[in-house]
Amino acid sequence: MKFLSAKKIKDTECLENIVADYQNGKLKKDDIVTFKAFIFNLRIKANFSFVLVRNQKRIFQCFFSPSDCPFDLTTLLEESSVKITGKIVPDSPCKINPGFEIAITNIEVLSMPPEQPYAIYKSIEQLNWQDDMVFNDRQLTLRQPYYRSIIKIASGVLRGFRDFMISEGFTEFIPPKIVQAGAEGGADMFEIDYFEKKAYLTQSPQMYKQAMVGIFSKVFCVSPVFRAEKHSTSRHINEFEGLDLEMGFIDSMDDLMALQTRMMAFIFDFLNKEYAFELGELKVTLPKIEKIPQVKFSEIKEIIAKEYNRPYRDEFDLEPEEEKLIGKYFIEKYDSPFVFITHYPSEKRPFYTMDCPKNPNTTLSFDLLLNGAEITTGGQRIHDYNAQITKMKAREMNPEHFADYLAMHKFGLPPHGGLGIGLERFVMKILNLQNIKYATCFPRDRDRLTP
Amino acid sequence: MKFLSAKKIKDTECLENIVADYQNGKLKKDDIVTFKAFIFNLRIKANFSFVLVRNQKRIFQCFFSPSDCPFDLTTLLEESSVKITGKIVPDSPCKINPGFEIAITNIEVLSMPPEQPYAIYKSIEQLNWQDDMVFNDRQLTLRQPYYRSIIKIASGVLRGFRDFMISEGFTEFIPPKIVQAGAEGGADMFEIDYFEKKAYLTQSPQMYKQAMVGIFSKVFCVSPVFRAEKHSTSRHINEFEGLDLEMGFIDSMDDLMALQTRMMAFIFDFLNKEYAFELGELKVTLPKIEKIPQVKFSEIKEIIAKEYNRPYRDEFDLEPEEEKLIGKYFIEKYDSPFVFITHYPSEKRPFYTMDCPKNPNTTLSFDLLLNGAEITTGGQRIHDYNAQITKMKAREMNPEHFADYLAMHKFGLPPHGGLGIGLERFVMKILNLQNIKYATCFPRDRDRLTP
Repeated sequence: MKFLSAKKIKDTECLENIVADYQNGKLKKDDIVTFKAFIFNLRIKANFSFVLVRNQKRIFQCFFSPSDCPFDLTTLLEESSVKITGKIVPDSPCKINPGFEIAITNIEVLSMPPEQPYAIYKSIEQLNWQDDMVFNDRQLTLRQPYYRSIIKIASGVLRGFRDFMISEGFTEFIPPKIVQAGAEGGADMFEIDYFEKKAYLTQSPQMYKQAMVGIFSKVFCVSPVFRAEKHSTSRHINEFEGLDLEMGFIDSMDDLMALQTRMMAFIFDFLNKEYAFELGELKVTLPKIEKIPQVKFSEIKEIIAKEYNRPYRDEFDLEPEEEKLIGKYFIEKYDSPFVFITHYPSEKRPFYTMDCPKNPNTTLSFDLLLNGAEITTGGQRIHDYNAQITKMKAREMNPEHFADYLAMHKFGLPPHGGLGIGLERFVMKILNLQNIKYATCFPRDRDRLTP
Repeated sequence: MKFLSAKKIKDTECLENIVADYQNGKLKKDDIVTFKAFIFNLRIKANFSFVLVRNQKRIFQCFFSPSDCPFDLTTLLEESSVKITGKIVPDSPCKINPGFEIAITNIEVLSMPPEQPYAIYKSIEQLNWQDDMVFNDRQLTLRQPYYRSIIKIASGVLRGFRDFMISEGFTEFIPPKIVQAGAEGGADMFEIDYFEKKAYLTQSPQMYKQAMVGIFSKVFCVSPVFRAEKHSTSRHINEFEGLDLEMGFIDSMDDLMALQTRMMAFIFDFLNKEYAFELGELKVTLPKIEKIPQVKFSEIKEIIAKEYNRPYRDEFDLEPEEEKLIGKYFIEKYDSPFVFITHYPSEKRPFYTMDCPKNPNTTLSFDLLLNGAEITTGGQRIHDYNAQITKMKAREMNPEHFADYLAMHKFGLPPHGGLGIGLERFVMKILNLQNIKYATCFPRDRDRLTP
């Protein structure tokens, strides 16, 4: 009988391991190494050529001389998969290389595309692709280092979020995606043929994360969320990833904002530490977060009106222009890219939001703004069964239609609250992207269902 | 301006922190502690009572004497949320407690259910709930320690899987859930009204994980998968969580099986270390995995026929009875709960599977069986554009209908392969559950869309 061993083995044909070995002094001049990679760009000349390869992380320049390697480079296509053997050449002046080059002595072709794909090795400024092409040929355009780095950062945000939640004692759970009705009414939901019934794609895990507070007290989920919004703009996608949490036994919503302040500090630190290479590719610097200011909705409206000589309008919401000015204000006055806006008007918040006891026209809720754009909505929820029914009735909702929702209140819930972050929007904001669709591998919008 | 600090603060009102402090010798007899929890069970007597509380992890017994605490226990309902203050009573004989009890001096009610929910504090044998009730009242029944522990283990499998993939250099990505067509044909898919078009819920991230090999070489995703199967049994759910990976630059499918052997060892170790409490609640022991045997499909069919005096039937597939006997055989002969079955007939494997060059009627594919049930299907994929078109044509598929799928081959792909695990099925198998629906918080089946 043949057995497969559980013993961890070092992948000696991995370029990243070779880089690490070189930087640790384990590899010296003329040592022979072998690795597998994609051909990224061939710069062929008569006497010597440059072979740029692409691995899971970086572009790396190798040196090719026909006298050292009997391979005919002109037969090779970019985006081929190859196994390269070569000698370590220390002290490379090549800026993209981590200190050394490899002088190729052998190339083995593992796989070749049927024809040469179009070039991806230039900068995005040089390439100047239209968005349609970027998304139509996602299988190729994501290989371009700029677009690829965005997706890598998104994966880093997921890791950072989860690691943080676990470190704070939260338990992950999986909410259902197919639901019978909507958490917030049912508008803008996609309808599904579910056997003989109608069903919908979830637009929020709200009901489920509140229910899970009854089970694990502190919970989080990372789960797709669907919105059938008809807009097709650079700020909309119809399928996105929700990072959601709900926290039981809170004293007030300050517990939630303190948690999110720690979370933002943690995620920024984590990205700076683990994803410095990709942040460098994207030319983005993330600051160290030590504190986040908080201000009431009504107060900041007045401050902004006064500070920027604006009329005081639309008392139930922040206008996009106001959000931008708030961003400007807190950067200039407090050097803070973040600010919590609290106590939004009850009018504009969902039925499960707890009203402020001191001023019931406002709520114990907040938004977190990053550089003048909302990235989180959160707040304290109503935990008492009768209080929730009273608020539903005041909104002319029929509690009988919400029996599933009210079941958790009926079985008992502690004081609790939570918040949600849209992954792609967050990534867009921290990386200053022009289009939210860059932050997801295979975006879905009104007109796009493929690839 | 008020600020929220990013500084980490210790939650002093957390029972788990009190347990840790007691076990580290930081708390002694008569020290005063305060914590928040649910009331799990009240055992009220005239002179003294037991108050069992439930926090995010455990049930904990407190001691209540009316002479020490002026609270009227009869006014309290189980599943209330409370803040309890009391004195440490060391050396408790109570089996469920971690060495000490707390003698209550004060109870503050934070929240009460409107009426007493039905009892959840007994064992599942005593409760003897019907499955319909278990799933109808999920918001309450998941609070019962047995059902809750299953979900905790599921969250541990997710953590273990991801931590392992990251440690092996894989990058996480998010595949789309709304797709235009199916990876494997389109049968058993849920149809969606997508604006003016028809769309479907994904039944597999297959195409997307293969495409992502071109970007990050090694990728994984944890993502919902939907199957419109009409069966409604204890082994079926219509929405489940897929743990999927795809690995580029493999030498052979042995690389995949070796990876999964390390993965199973890692996840079992991780659960034994981090989730010992919940495994204890579920009375499950997970063995240490050091190696996994592998055997060819055709060989094991013969071995089982001979060993158990069975006729040799159905040469393209394993019958459920055969799978069970294989499980028995490998436990008895090799003390292994796992076994890889390799080289499945080409007939039964999807169009993207690479055929075995030595015997093209078989494939470079495998299943992993755990205790006689399949938990993984995997294999090497066709990476060459023309080879994939040839196989499609041999299956009377029109390559023009698969332009999106073939784009990645056209742009170039390395030799690669991958595998997938259904989270709920895996949890069901490692915990010996009678119903796969126990392994998910809010199961969806043909007849169930709520809660």
